[in-house]
Amino acid sequence: MMPEEAELARVTEAVRHVVHGVGIPRPAPEPGATPPVHLWQGVESYLRTGGKFLRSALLLWACELMGGRRTAALPVAAGVEIYHTWTLVHDDIIDRDARRRGGPSVHEEFRLRGAMELELSPEAASHYGLSLAILAGDVQHAWAVSLLAGASEISPEMALRLIADLETDVLRAIAEGEALDLLLSHRPLSAMDEGDILDMMAKKTAALYEFAARAGAVIGLGQYSPDHFLVAPLAAFGRFCGMAFQLQDDILGLEGEDQELGKPVGSDIREGKRTVILHHAWRRATPDQQERLMAIVGDPAAKEQQVREAIALLGSLGGMEYAARLSRGYLDQALLELQVLPDRPERRWLEAFARSMVSRRR
Amino acid sequence: MMPEEAELARVTEAVRHVVHGVGIPRPAPEPGATPPVHLWQGVESYLRTGGKFLRSALLLWACELMGGRRTAALPVAAGVEIYHTWTLVHDDIIDRDARRRGGPSVHEEFRLRGAMELELSPEAASHYGLSLAILAGDVQHAWAVSLLAGASEISPEMALRLIADLETDVLRAIAEGEALDLLLSHRPLSAMDEGDILDMMAKKTAALYEFAARAGAVIGLGQYSPDHFLVAPLAAFGRFCGMAFQLQDDILGLEGEDQELGKPVGSDIREGKRTVILHHAWRRATPDQQERLMAIVGDPAAKEQQVREAIALLGSLGGMEYAARLSRGYLDQALLELQVLPDRPERRWLEAFARSMVSRRR
Repeated sequence: MMPEEAELARVTEAVRHVVHGVGIPRPAPEPGATPPVHLWQGVESYLRTGGKFLRSALLLWACELMGGRRTAALPVAAGVEIYHTWTLVHDDIIDRDARRRGGPSVHEEFRLRGAMELELSPEAASHYGLSLAILAGDVQHAWAVSLLAGASEISPEMALRLIADLETDVLRAIAEGEALDLLLSHRPLSAMDEGDILDMMAKKTAALYEFAARAGAVIGLGQYSPDHFLVAPLAAFGRFCGMAFQLQDDILGLEGEDQELGKPVGSDIREGKRTVILHHAWRRATPDQQERLMAIVGDPAAKEQQVREAIALLGSLGGMEYAARLSRGYLDQALLELQVLPDRPERRWLEAFARSMVSRRR
Repeated sequence: MMPEEAELARVTEAVRHVVHGVGIPRPAPEPGATPPVHLWQGVESYLRTGGKFLRSALLLWACELMGGRRTAALPVAAGVEIYHTWTLVHDDIIDRDARRRGGPSVHEEFRLRGAMELELSPEAASHYGLSLAILAGDVQHAWAVSLLAGASEISPEMALRLIADLETDVLRAIAEGEALDLLLSHRPLSAMDEGDILDMMAKKTAALYEFAARAGAVIGLGQYSPDHFLVAPLAAFGRFCGMAFQLQDDILGLEGEDQELGKPVGSDIREGKRTVILHHAWRRATPDQQERLMAIVGDPAAKEQQVREAIALLGSLGGMEYAARLSRGYLDQALLELQVLPDRPERRWLEAFARSMVSRRR
């Protein structure tokens, strides 16, 4: 194991401990009280099945690079992880994703269990799964905030500034990014615009990475100064990592393995998700190829064979290659930001972190 | 106008000013950027169309009764109102309510606009409305928290304690109450239990009333002491008012006027909502009457005539009368709590407030 991998394992373990050890106290399952039990199982679902804790690691290393103590930032790191999780739960409803992290998504799990355990009709079971997933995400949202509010080793002023930052600018970006994602998927492929797609990625994904880096940095600094000459580059580093991560995510969604992804390869094709891959390929496609893409992309009922055809087409038109080039470009920008930061071990971990955004296979 | 009505009007106006004047800055609508515009319209929807600002008034009067200044508590009062609003937006999805406050519910409004403005298919429009409503509620949730985080006239310690209170115990109660509501409606009528129904009301409705009173009281006191000999009775006062409010709400849902309610009378019947009214009537019904109720309650397609028949049956079996008696019982308990509080004008306003829970017609 490389030193930075060992370090990531240590960080992940520490955050996992906080996630599973504190927060909203879990009610003991009462006999017969089925839905609170389902609700709390929904709340813990994605946290139980894993997650890479990347945002937490970013936050903790940013804190330590600025001279702060890891323990001071731990509850905030756990809060960021859980904040990310609630956006996934609600996003999976919106994107109609039935799988996540190798298991059913929350709304899908409780659709199945509503049918089996509560013997609901298919329609009622669907609505039950949807309802429980909305509530589970709401609880996680509140849980994340309460972890920040309860962070005892940072000053009350700092905790409040971090909560305000997360719940105004960051939340606004995430919600607008989701809404933009929703709209773009309803526009014709011919009206795709790369600027819109990058804007959507910046809001939906990079904003929370940027927050994680900024939060860690100001905690390490001991005062909430987002414009500080070392905090600002760390925040930018986080943002660029987020962009590189999302581009690689889009590539893996087409080229990865089901098992490593935790969801079916090609689901982005059926959903009609707008990516720079699709945009780049579309601009280079012949009218015949565009017609093929139009017939498959965005069709939830597209056959396995058709999805494979579309992926091959996107590949041969250079879509994945282009996204990989863009991703490396963001990596380079991230590494440039690191240059101005103190030469400490955490800087090397952050460098490895940035490189893993591009090289990861899951 | 009675003095307490004039006072309520003043309070409402003050909170309305905060709700519409501060918070997450509104982005100017960009041409072509349809969904962020829809998103922000969804966020403001229920706030624009009204609301009675009851929880805000409770909070502000509790603050003043404890000797605090109204301005200190105003952002928190606005936050509680917006917090209530996000629970409504998500609750309307879960309850499949198409109307609220005299207009379409958020998911219904954007289903209609998705079909008209974005020319979506009926199925896609439904999903669009659902997705936007989930996001609009999420934004309101965050907005409410950020109002508490930004309350500049209370100490950072106090703001953090209030956020932690709201986002742990209160949120947990609300989410469990929602989940319980969902489960109870899937149980057979014959398995109804009054204790379950009252527990659900306490969690879903009374917990936020109690929080409003407690938050106002500790702000007025100048320190977060929920067990203080004057704070605890005010919190209990809030909880009893919440129970009385919900019971009257259930009565109005059957006996009110569409226009005053802002939603169709009898929708609780079609939804199969478990209320003490239904429980009481069921226990007193003959087998024939139970069969009639079973045929109508919980049938979304029940005809106007059938719904009227069910309401008449609930009335003749004493259901509404029983709920009214229970509601007055909670009012009495609320008034008892007031006895130990200082004899100041705000105590009279709170007394009028409690009485209005039971006497209100909308």
